[in-house]
Amino acid sequence: MSDRIDSPVIEQQLAHRSVRRFLDVPVTDAQLGRIVSAAQRASTSSNLQAWTVVAIHDADRKRRISQAIGDHHYVEHAPVLLVWLADFARNAELIRSRGAEPATLGLIENTVLGSVDVGIAAQNALLAAESLGLGGLFIGGIRNDPAAVSAELELPQNVFPVVGMALGVPDPAEGTGLKPRLPLSAVLHREAYDPEAWRDGTEQYEENYREYFAGQGVESRSWARAVSGRLGTVEGMHGRHTMRESLRAQGFHSE
Amino acid sequence: MSDRIDSPVIEQQLAHRSVRRFLDVPVTDAQLGRIVSAAQRASTSSNLQAWTVVAIHDADRKRRISQAIGDHHYVEHAPVLLVWLADFARNAELIRSRGAEPATLGLIENTVLGSVDVGIAAQNALLAAESLGLGGLFIGGIRNDPAAVSAELELPQNVFPVVGMALGVPDPAEGTGLKPRLPLSAVLHREAYDPEAWRDGTEQYEENYREYFAGQGVESRSWARAVSGRLGTVEGMHGRHTMRESLRAQGFHSE
Repeated sequence: MSDRIDSPVIEQQLAHRSVRRFLDVPVTDAQLGRIVSAAQRASTSSNLQAWTVVAIHDADRKRRISQAIGDHHYVEHAPVLLVWLADFARNAELIRSRGAEPATLGLIENTVLGSVDVGIAAQNALLAAESLGLGGLFIGGIRNDPAAVSAELELPQNVFPVVGMALGVPDPAEGTGLKPRLPLSAVLHREAYDPEAWRDGTEQYEENYREYFAGQGVESRSWARAVSGRLGTVEGMHGRHTMRESLRAQGFHSE
Repeated sequence: MSDRIDSPVIEQQLAHRSVRRFLDVPVTDAQLGRIVSAAQRASTSSNLQAWTVVAIHDADRKRRISQAIGDHHYVEHAPVLLVWLADFARNAELIRSRGAEPATLGLIENTVLGSVDVGIAAQNALLAAESLGLGGLFIGGIRNDPAAVSAELELPQNVFPVVGMALGVPDPAEGTGLKPRLPLSAVLHREAYDPEAWRDGTEQYEENYREYFAGQGVESRSWARAVSGRLGTVEGMHGRHTMRESLRAQGFHSE
């Protein structure tokens, strides 16, 4: 035991950037299997293993999904598109096979549990991919039209599309850098929540944020404005304001 | 570029096991900072950075939280207990500072988004910790009594405790192994959801599951029975059937 703070894992984590442009090189089946196996080894609540991932290579299907959720070139052109699903269908069938009913699936606890567990698994997958020289990004936009995605993927009841992920070999011509984050002191609190902790660093953060985007050739960006645009109006939700109905349609009543 | 399928990252991921017994050795401040920095580098929806983590060292506080959620020795005795929070309080204040209202925070989309983003960040943190020779586990049980945890951590509106995490130096006397998972074919589907994909492997999985627990000195365990006990009755929820009220009390109306 030591108190070291460096490792190859942390080095990989600190190098994360979202990749949206890919070379025309396939992700191999062996790589994909390895990436999802790494996701499976991550923690899963009560070992329910309440997620499934659908890998999409078909160009037409990727184009249809892209069109449904608002035309994202990285959805259409990713060598492989993964859709991560909260999946209680297996659990439900197991329970029924024992002559019982999956009585709790309509509770919002399981919507939260499925969402957390998808996040845990998918992050292991993305980091595994990055460690193999691949790149990609999370696509929350998959929730812009869950009904269309559910139909496209033929999802049964108790299965819901939580997040997408594009994967491939990064195009080195794409110059994305490491987007700045809030200072550590804003997000790591001690013993109890400190509502003032983030204020000190915010002005500096806005400056870092502005500089980052200026370096990408985009002028006058502001984090406060971006957050306001995203959460301050229903328009910023890109269709996700009807999420409750979408969840219900898939059996996630979230009561 | 190559089609290799091995890396130090994946090796670390495949070695994950939940650790519940710890040596009496502190997690250093430098380690904790590094672990949370690694979490910050992970993807965050629309860069909202909608999470905060509270690190708890105080023995009385850990004991009170343990008692509130049903007496977990690893909550009480972990060198450090992390509570991962979905946190839209910063976002809400930013929006108000621009003279607008955070109009969308009551939508269930943001409950899902916060849960996914906590899962992503927290998994990076746990893997980072493991790569430094530490160990730990996710504690969904933190949701057994969100009201008590929120009071203990003095959480304001728009902040909700999603998942806990115990961290420390693993006690080598604890002999936990790698809990078996469903076969890859059950959770990785191609092009569309395959409702039959998990059936073939299930009998074999039940055997692996039984053998794993027998090796841990626990006889006659069954995955189907465990799943039924957890999701088939409200008792299996350990208090989480009132999650909707708990979320609402913190401003997550989830409409």
